[in-house]
Amino acid sequence: MLRPPDHQVAGHQAVEGQLGPLVDGAGLLYKTLQGDDRGAQEAAFYSSFSSDPRVPPHVRAFFPGFHGTQLLPASDGSGPHPHLVLDDLAAGLRRPSLIDIKIGACTWYPSAPDDYIRKCLKKDRDTTSLALGFRISGARIHQGGDAGFWRPDREAVRRFTAEDVRRALRQFVSSNPASDPGPPDCAFASAVYGRSDGVLAQLLELKAWFEDQTLFHFYSVSVLVMYAREEVEARRAGGGVRVKLVDFAHVMEGNGVIDHNFLGGLCSLIKFISEILTDPDECLAEPSKAHLSFENGS
Amino acid sequence: MLRPPDHQVAGHQAVEGQLGPLVDGAGLLYKTLQGDDRGAQEAAFYSSFSSDPRVPPHVRAFFPGFHGTQLLPASDGSGPHPHLVLDDLAAGLRRPSLIDIKIGACTWYPSAPDDYIRKCLKKDRDTTSLALGFRISGARIHQGGDAGFWRPDREAVRRFTAEDVRRALRQFVSSNPASDPGPPDCAFASAVYGRSDGVLAQLLELKAWFEDQTLFHFYSVSVLVMYAREEVEARRAGGGVRVKLVDFAHVMEGNGVIDHNFLGGLCSLIKFISEILTDPDECLAEPSKAHLSFENGS
Repeated sequence: MLRPPDHQVAGHQAVEGQLGPLVDGAGLLYKTLQGDDRGAQEAAFYSSFSSDPRVPPHVRAFFPGFHGTQLLPASDGSGPHPHLVLDDLAAGLRRPSLIDIKIGACTWYPSAPDDYIRKCLKKDRDTTSLALGFRISGARIHQGGDAGFWRPDREAVRRFTAEDVRRALRQFVSSNPASDPGPPDCAFASAVYGRSDGVLAQLLELKAWFEDQTLFHFYSVSVLVMYAREEVEARRAGGGVRVKLVDFAHVMEGNGVIDHNFLGGLCSLIKFISEILTDPDECLAEPSKAHLSFENGS
Repeated sequence: MLRPPDHQVAGHQAVEGQLGPLVDGAGLLYKTLQGDDRGAQEAAFYSSFSSDPRVPPHVRAFFPGFHGTQLLPASDGSGPHPHLVLDDLAAGLRRPSLIDIKIGACTWYPSAPDDYIRKCLKKDRDTTSLALGFRISGARIHQGGDAGFWRPDREAVRRFTAEDVRRALRQFVSSNPASDPGPPDCAFASAVYGRSDGVLAQLLELKAWFEDQTLFHFYSVSVLVMYAREEVEARRAGGGVRVKLVDFAHVMEGNGVIDHNFLGGLCSLIKFISEILTDPDECLAEPSKAHLSFENGS
């Protein structure tokens, strides 16, 4: 009855005998606890967060509901393995388009071992994390009717430049996502990003909390954005737009300091999305990739 | 006629035959151009910035006015040396208290050489930059009457912990700044930080610009906060409160992306200052310095 979710766009997948999350089709997702510290850390975060009275309900709604841990046969065929029992965030959405955006210029936590920091720092520099304050980890975008999904492949996503990210955020809300090299039409931008309960409004709500909260520092956490194209095309209220936070294996206590790393990246993402709403038809000019000095700038 | 400014709290000082800035006592400051790239970069920034029509006047007011470069005998006695001619930011203020706060968790720019990055990253980790998104670089705080200034020594400032920073931001607006180990009284908090044209209001104005501007990325730039105790005690309008940005040797072009590193650090500083206004009498509890996990948090 349990099966791999068809809506996963990043992280370990339960295919070809590997460990990965499973869904029950009735609203729950079972996430394999990773054997190292990460699994224990994520379970501890969910347990702490879900009972923390300082988190207001409208903020809690951005997080997957947590229903404890459970021993289940693992997706790789090995014996019983502990799983986090979480809300399936895509439950009830028909063929959702999804994009996974890892927030923060810095994906490593300050107390991490040196070799871990070096590895993350290299990846943050090689991807757009350091430059933009976030990177896209994966996406799948419904192409309408029975045309299935357009998915950039994982290697291509890893090599995304700032301009690729700008384009992907437009493709995500376009009726012609695969229109390379032509421009994506941003047909659903106002319905998905712009509505009063759309992505931008939800990100701004999240931002207001991050300007104030000093409880947690969310390293390497993703914003998962999704919507159902059919609902948007049918102009159904909400369009199935959901904004959620996922992947809490590297959350640290805030110790009275705001999460300036997450907040900075979130503000950068907000600016990218605002610009799509301001200039949905903007021609994507080729940017200069060189490091520019001001020496000729007077 | 030129002399070292008596209000400098960080950076190279023109004392004991060293190179450093000079003031003319009539409103101008002459900053020695550093011989390496930094001097050229800073001159290029001022030149570019001062003629950029995209910078609104209320934002320009946070920056020192720029009046070109000029050859002058250097403060170390060597021959003519190029200097930036800038507004003396403390001009007209009698015995100003100052604090220099370097903004950003990351003080290195992405295109920097590896050894420079390593050096900065180590310093960012060893100071509060990484944890808080900013660090204090220096301060001097007037003690009232003829008692002169209280200055934390440079070595002590380098070792500041998060709690030391919290305390220093309170001392800065206290009538008893040197009251260690007793609590600073925050007597001037509302006059300096809280007024409608005070430090917090000005930082929020700066924040609004940083949420939107994609022109510049300000690495290793400081917010310099100052006020004149006598004016505050005499309840003169404004209290001589000034908030300025200084040190532009590592400003990069923004290339259409907001400066999420500076913005994140600025938001963290804003939170620290807001808390002083909310709880001016708060007893400073000793924080846990250990890395906390959530494993016992359920």
